[in-house]
Amino acid sequence: MSENARNDLSEIFRASLDRVDPYKMIGDRMTLKGKILSVRTDEETLEWDLSRYRQVLVLGAGKATAKMALAVEEILGDRITRGVIAVKPGHTENLKRIEMIMAGHPVPDAGSVQAGSTLAALCREADEKTLILNLISGGGSALLSFPYAWRDGEGSHELTLEDKQGTTRVLLACGANIQEINCIRKHLSGIKGGRLAQLAYPAESVNLILSDVVGDRLDSIASGLAVPDDTTYQEAMGLVQKFGIARELPPPALKVLQMGAEGKLPETPKQGDPVFGRVKNILIGSNYGALLAARRRAEELGYNTVVLTAEVTGEAREAAKFYIGIARDVLKHELAAKKPACIIAGGETTVTLKGKGKGGRNQEMALSFLSEIEANPAGSRGIHFLAASTDGNDGPTDAAGAFADMEILDIGKKAGLSIQDYLARNDSYHYYDRIGFLHKTGPTNTNVCDVQITIIR
Amino acid sequence: MSENARNDLSEIFRASLDRVDPYKMIGDRMTLKGKILSVRTDEETLEWDLSRYRQVLVLGAGKATAKMALAVEEILGDRITRGVIAVKPGHTENLKRIEMIMAGHPVPDAGSVQAGSTLAALCREADEKTLILNLISGGGSALLSFPYAWRDGEGSHELTLEDKQGTTRVLLACGANIQEINCIRKHLSGIKGGRLAQLAYPAESVNLILSDVVGDRLDSIASGLAVPDDTTYQEAMGLVQKFGIARELPPPALKVLQMGAEGKLPETPKQGDPVFGRVKNILIGSNYGALLAARRRAEELGYNTVVLTAEVTGEAREAAKFYIGIARDVLKHELAAKKPACIIAGGETTVTLKGKGKGGRNQEMALSFLSEIEANPAGSRGIHFLAASTDGNDGPTDAAGAFADMEILDIGKKAGLSIQDYLARNDSYHYYDRIGFLHKTGPTNTNVCDVQITIIR
Repeated sequence: MSENARNDLSEIFRASLDRVDPYKMIGDRMTLKGKILSVRTDEETLEWDLSRYRQVLVLGAGKATAKMALAVEEILGDRITRGVIAVKPGHTENLKRIEMIMAGHPVPDAGSVQAGSTLAALCREADEKTLILNLISGGGSALLSFPYAWRDGEGSHELTLEDKQGTTRVLLACGANIQEINCIRKHLSGIKGGRLAQLAYPAESVNLILSDVVGDRLDSIASGLAVPDDTTYQEAMGLVQKFGIARELPPPALKVLQMGAEGKLPETPKQGDPVFGRVKNILIGSNYGALLAARRRAEELGYNTVVLTAEVTGEAREAAKFYIGIARDVLKHELAAKKPACIIAGGETTVTLKGKGKGGRNQEMALSFLSEIEANPAGSRGIHFLAASTDGNDGPTDAAGAFADMEILDIGKKAGLSIQDYLARNDSYHYYDRIGFLHKTGPTNTNVCDVQITIIR
Repeated sequence: MSENARNDLSEIFRASLDRVDPYKMIGDRMTLKGKILSVRTDEETLEWDLSRYRQVLVLGAGKATAKMALAVEEILGDRITRGVIAVKPGHTENLKRIEMIMAGHPVPDAGSVQAGSTLAALCREADEKTLILNLISGGGSALLSFPYAWRDGEGSHELTLEDKQGTTRVLLACGANIQEINCIRKHLSGIKGGRLAQLAYPAESVNLILSDVVGDRLDSIASGLAVPDDTTYQEAMGLVQKFGIARELPPPALKVLQMGAEGKLPETPKQGDPVFGRVKNILIGSNYGALLAARRRAEELGYNTVVLTAEVTGEAREAAKFYIGIARDVLKHELAAKKPACIIAGGETTVTLKGKGKGGRNQEMALSFLSEIEANPAGSRGIHFLAASTDGNDGPTDAAGAFADMEILDIGKKAGLSIQDYLARNDSYHYYDRIGFLHKTGPTNTNVCDVQITIIR
């Protein structure tokens, strides 16, 4: 009975993974009929007549980009004039036309700079008879680096890779959040914060984006390469003051921010800038899309299904308490849905580490859910839970996530494992590994954050 | 626009309060026609022919019990043979027939013991021609104390009020959760853990219960006076060992637990005990009921309304993140409901205090929600939030809760208030008090935990 429920959870999760498979996503949305290239968005189908273009470039960066490129090659074949993408070692494919540059992640390296310069050069040379397909996915920020260059009375200057790496280290240590880090990072880059769109103008750009960011803000994914930036140099300098990092930043980086704030350097391009008139951003894969696919499969399996949100954030073990509350009132009152019910949500939670154990946000959430079952077993019969990461690696582990239900609780008790002890050590991986209820998918080569599924029957 | 939304939030919350007004609840459910007393439960209508009873006793304990008693007096009038209830000073009514005994809360006092002895004596004298109406609400545990008494080879013994008070202090300090505290408390009481039902047998008892406990477990509300206890003396002794409190407990209390665990004292009555054949437990008010009333009002106001659960628990500021996630995806995708939408849930969260400010769990949740709006204002337009306690006093404050929306964020910013600073100090009350967006209802004389309402339009 419990095993059937866990099989259903696995199947529903598998449907969400299938939906965001980078290769399938491109295949589902892109077609070439004669000279007409079509791309289906969630709202409409866009078309480009390739006979109007002198060249078609395929560019991009990200951990899922090689798989996207493989599908693009199969569809466009020799219509591709040239292709260059920045990829992470281990995330490559056997491509025929599109060149892969190996680059560093999560810390940019010389490969990142090589990729950045190559893409920038190709964009600069592109004219209005050029169509650029940009394949963008998570990790693109680190895989692509093009340090800012400027000219003043004293001649030409440019930031170095070391300046960018030093800046990144200071930002990660100072307590700034991701929006704040991005604000500073974009203003030190020659390619991010919409500057890729500037470089490519007047070519026509189509950005096919796989989102690994909760909320799918396009200006956050891969640092918004071709998206209007709503932050400014002045805000960036304000953050430098707020976190008191003026002395810690590499001096050339600080100088760029200061000059920008004084109006001596051009701003990143803003909403309304004509360069964006030549850019089409298309979100082809996201947590939201994955959840809708999960819903479809859950409904096929006979569950009355509710998708709550693709934006679950906050502390992993606290989110588990919200999920069990909803499940309990399905059980008691069929409140959120009638039985058999399936409640789906996604997003990306965090874990505040206190112990030195091994685990990930999804495994910790599942273990916290199990602890809630333990506190009220009578109110938990028929409830089954799965929390899992779509990239297949939850935290630094080889598991995507873990399950929770009454049977697992009993097995854990019989094995003499104390849920509270494992939670206190942040050691969810070992709790589940001991009794065999991790959920392993292997690396999926995609990433749209996490999915949580609760079945109540 | 924002003001209208906040008015709607207030109205919807007001509807939930109305539903759990102790006086109205009794009036809605109880009628007397001739000699037939009817009580409507959520499933059926129960009837008692008063001509079959020699006497009708009205007993009870709790912070809302005086208001319940007022309604019972108006309905039953001189059909009441005698009435005694334990109430908290300040929670009294002008009663004509039912005696009120002032007792201590949250720490039991001599009044609690007087009330406990009086109720126990009336129950002992009751015969099968006696109908007892028990009016039970939150706080009943402390307001009613009847320390356990036993007899052994050395004569008669009984626990004292001091033993009970001392035990309570040790339990609160040792880290035990409420289930664990109740397990020990029930086994040291002559009236809790179902023992009131034993005392009253063979009289017929009707317990009208207002739940202040998340999940509405009847064995938890007022320590389950007339409800089967599924815990044992052996479990109680296991907890004494688990928390290492054998030396700290008052020796007579420890002795009772030891004797019980050795089988030398009778257990609390269990499921299937014949005494419960004469008991009817009726949940007349709960968080769940309050949420359904809120839903009705929200629908009247034109909102597409979803009630998620009455069992939201966990850290207050983390629950806010779950709520805003759901709201954001209503805004973007109409995912959980179509706009204009209203998302309702309830329960009781906790606050892990780190600062020394003033606030309550609902005010802290609202301020955390406001902080989420600040992090992504573009994704928050049209979202309005209210978190409030149904007893009118959120934490040690004179406010029931607080609001959150874009306008409040702007007003707070203009006043120079830093949300992060106020959150770090757990000082939500003063943040809201400075700008005037606390929600104040005054004391409501009821308590079914908390309600949170999100409007998206």
